[in-house]
Formats: sequence, structure tokens, C-alpha cells
Amino acid sequence: MRRIKLTVAYDGTNYCGWQIQPNGLAVQQVLDECLSQMLKVPVRTIGASRTDAGVHALGQVAVFDTEARMPAEKYALALNTRLPQDIRIQGSCQVSPDFHPRFSQTVKTYEYRIFNRMFPDPTKRLYSFFYYYPLDVELMRKGAAYLVGEHDFAGFCTAKPEVTNTVRTVYSLDVIQEGPMITLRITGNGFLYNMVRIIAGTLIRVGGGTYPPEQVKKALEQKDRSLAGETARPEGLTLVKISYPEWEEKWETFAGNP
Amino acid sequence: MRRIKLTVAYDGTNYCGWQIQPNGLAVQQVLDECLSQMLKVPVRTIGASRTDAGVHALGQVAVFDTEARMPAEKYALALNTRLPQDIRIQGSCQVSPDFHPRFSQTVKTYEYRIFNRMFPDPTKRLYSFFYYYPLDVELMRKGAAYLVGEHDFAGFCTAKPEVTNTVRTVYSLDVIQEGPMITLRITGNGFLYNMVRIIAGTLIRVGGGTYPPEQVKKALEQKDRSLAGETARPEGLTLVKISYPEWEEKWETFAGNP
Repeated sequence: MRRIKLTVAYDGTNYCGWQIQPNGLAVQQVLDECLSQMLKVPVRTIGASRTDAGVHALGQVAVFDTEARMPAEKYALALNTRLPQDIRIQGSCQVSPDFHPRFSQTVKTYEYRIFNRMFPDPTKRLYSFFYYYPLDVELMRKGAAYLVGEHDFAGFCTAKPEVTNTVRTVYSLDVIQEGPMITLRITGNGFLYNMVRIIAGTLIRVGGGTYPPEQVKKALEQKDRSLAGETARPEGLTLVKISYPEWEEKWETFAGNP
Repeated sequence: MRRIKLTVAYDGTNYCGWQIQPNGLAVQQVLDECLSQMLKVPVRTIGASRTDAGVHALGQVAVFDTEARMPAEKYALALNTRLPQDIRIQGSCQVSPDFHPRFSQTVKTYEYRIFNRMFPDPTKRLYSFFYYYPLDVELMRKGAAYLVGEHDFAGFCTAKPEVTNTVRTVYSLDVIQEGPMITLRITGNGFLYNMVRIIAGTLIRVGGGTYPPEQVKKALEQKDRSLAGETARPEGLTLVKISYPEWEEKWETFAGNP
């Protein structure tokens, strides 16, 4: 039995999210069906991050176990010939059977992209959130600075009864402007449900002048969801990268690690 | 009677091109239907550039004549509330009734985007051409340099019986690399049928080492289509901008010019 790790990119536009659900087509379902057909046995992957409907990924991580003797690095190309064009494996390698993509220590990077101009650009509409009113990037940076570090992010998540610990560490949160595109790039040790989209919704309010930057501090300290902004639309969000600092050194010894 | 000029952006993925055709839905058809509904009389626009099926535009130009008294600059917002999300007007203004978008002197800019990496990025697939084999950008620049200037581009077009003069001037052709994305940005006084896509197909052959850069010179001098590369796929191409040097100074005097 070998455990294979896949790095998965997808355009989330036409999916109900990563995880298999009763209603709608999930990325995981399409991937699992391709793997099962290819290996001629039922395969069920475990994903690192349950991205929501409409959210994109460049570096989702999924693992599965197999008795097949195909070299680990071949899975990427073999799957890409079978998958629809909106899902593409970026690399495959063998990992330790003890590695679990969700219960291991991670460093995750997300980007939230805001297209801030008078008129939308139709070629940007699927991968960014269009926002008409002018945003002040300097104010957004001031607001963003309060979020960096270890905090209780209870005010910046949609509550889930099974989640009791809402403390997370944000390592960095950069507000990058390239012409009309404003990208919030956030790296942390984990994110609560809707956390990045609520941060984006809050910083849009700060950039538009509805909230002062200090409102971010207030929502954080008072752990009050009603003090933060709305959950920003899914099409702006992309899961960029997931790192496993405790594991990646060991993977070097496995063949086919991309 | 007033002549209104629209700057039109569209995602060409789901259209058979700009111009109304018997088979398939054209961008112009959707735009004309919206305009006709809005103004309650049949409207037929004249477009500057007949982009092909799957080709995108950020700065297509179209004009129409109307007796309506709506201020010219209001058309952009009014149309955007009616158009589907993959078509968006970027600006509207009144122009001289003598201005014709196709028979006036123009400076056009196109971009052809090549995503050059081992694995495709699904979020780039609709707006760039995926190419697996590594491309040498320096070789592409050497090949591109032969195309700049006034030349007979008979070797770089799909022949059309009605086109007798195949001399065009390319003002610039830059090969821009940003990570895995290679953008060919070409500006000229006009382009023959498929010319930018054939230039792209040829420079891809040069970058991949199939053709030496001098092959571009040879195809140009011998006016031989068979010496150039294939017509590169449409999704990589975007019509970026159309300028009218003889007219733009005069338009300054019209209200609502974006």
C-alpha cells in the first residue's frame, strides 16, 4: 500500500466546492471517479481544504492509498488526460502513510482578488470580485495590519458548532495593487470557515471608507462577527498553496516529488 | 441623428465571433438586440474589427446612429445592466457622423498570450494558449524583430479574395515574459485575416527550436504562407485597443468621451 499526494488546481466556477455533497458536482467527486476508473478499484481521496462553491485552487492537496505499481510521479500526467479542462493535477509524489493532509501542521496561502474599476472586464469576471466604488489601498493595508499575528478570529468566521478553538496565526497579509486589480494575499497556519472571505469583505469596507481601519481591531478584540464586513463573493478567492513544514523535508527522499 | 461610439469588451469563449453570422451567436447580435430593446427601434452597429470565434476583446469599437436623446455617456451603464456578463461596455461617447470605425486610419493593439509550463492552470485556460514544450523567449524576440516595420504580410495571413493589398505596418511587437505567461503584444496600422495568430504560431515554432528566427524573414520575403507556422488557437488572442489618430483630437470636443 502506498500513499500518493496530488497537488490539484481547479477553476471552481462550475463546482459546488471541493468536497463531495448530496447536491451538485464536487471537484473531489470528479477526481475520485477518474482515479477509480484509471485504477479499476474504488478510490476515495482525502483533501486538505474544503473550498466552497465557486472558489478556485492552484495548490489544493489530496492523498489516496493504492496497491497500484504505477510510479507516483506518473499520476499527474495520467489523470490530466482524463480530467475535464477545469481540473488539472500540478504534480504527484509518494508520501508517508502517516501523512494526513488535514491533521498535519500546515502553512496555507490564499489570494482574494478585487477588480476595482468603473466597468467590469469580462475576461476577469470569473477569477476576481468586481467592485465599482474606489478603494483606498493604504487604508486597506492599515486595516490588514491588525490581523497579522496570533489572534482569536471568532469575529471573522461563520460559526460551526464542531469548531471550538478559533485561535489562528496569520503570518502575513499583503494588499497588492496592479492597475485595477487589488490582491489580498494571506498566509497563515489555518483558516476558519469563510475567514478569508470575511476578511476581504471587511477590508473592502475599510478601503471604501465605510469602516475606519480600527474597526478591524475592534471586531477582532470583541470577537463579534457583526462588527466585521460581509462574506465577500466566492469567485475572488483562490487557494494558492499549502505547505507542510514538518513533512516536506522527509518527502525529498521519495521519488517523483515535484 | 447622432452617431454613438461604444468601446466593447467581451469574453469570446461562447461566441462565434464579433460579426453576425448564420450559424452561432455573435457578440454583435447580442449587443444589437440589447440596443434595439432599449431604444425601441431596430439598431445595427458597425464594428471596427471582425474578431473570430473564441477571440476576446477589451477595446473593440462599434458605432450606431440614433435619434434618441439619451446623453451619449449614459449608454455604457444602461447597456451593461442589460448585457450578459461576458460582454461589458467600457465607455460611450458621441462622434462625428463621418466617423467610420473600419474605414478610418487606425492603430490597433492585440495580445497573444501563451501559458508555457509543464501543467496547465485551469484558471488561465480560457484566456491563454497552453503550450507544454519550453519556449526560448530570446529566440522569439529575434524572430519578432523581422516583423516590425512596413512589410507585405502575404505569407502571414489566410488569403481572402477581396483583399488585394497585403502590405501592413507593424509598429511594435514585444515578447513579454511574466513567470510562465509569455505575451506577444503587437501594435500596427491594421492586421490581415488570422495575421496575429499566424505570427503567434510562427514565433512558437521559433521559441521551441523548430524554426530558426531567420525563418520569419524568409516567410516574409517569399510571401509564402507554407513557410510560416500554424494559425495559433483563438483563446490566446485578445483585441486590446483601437485608436483613431485622425479623429481622437476632434472627439475631445464631444461631451461624455471616456
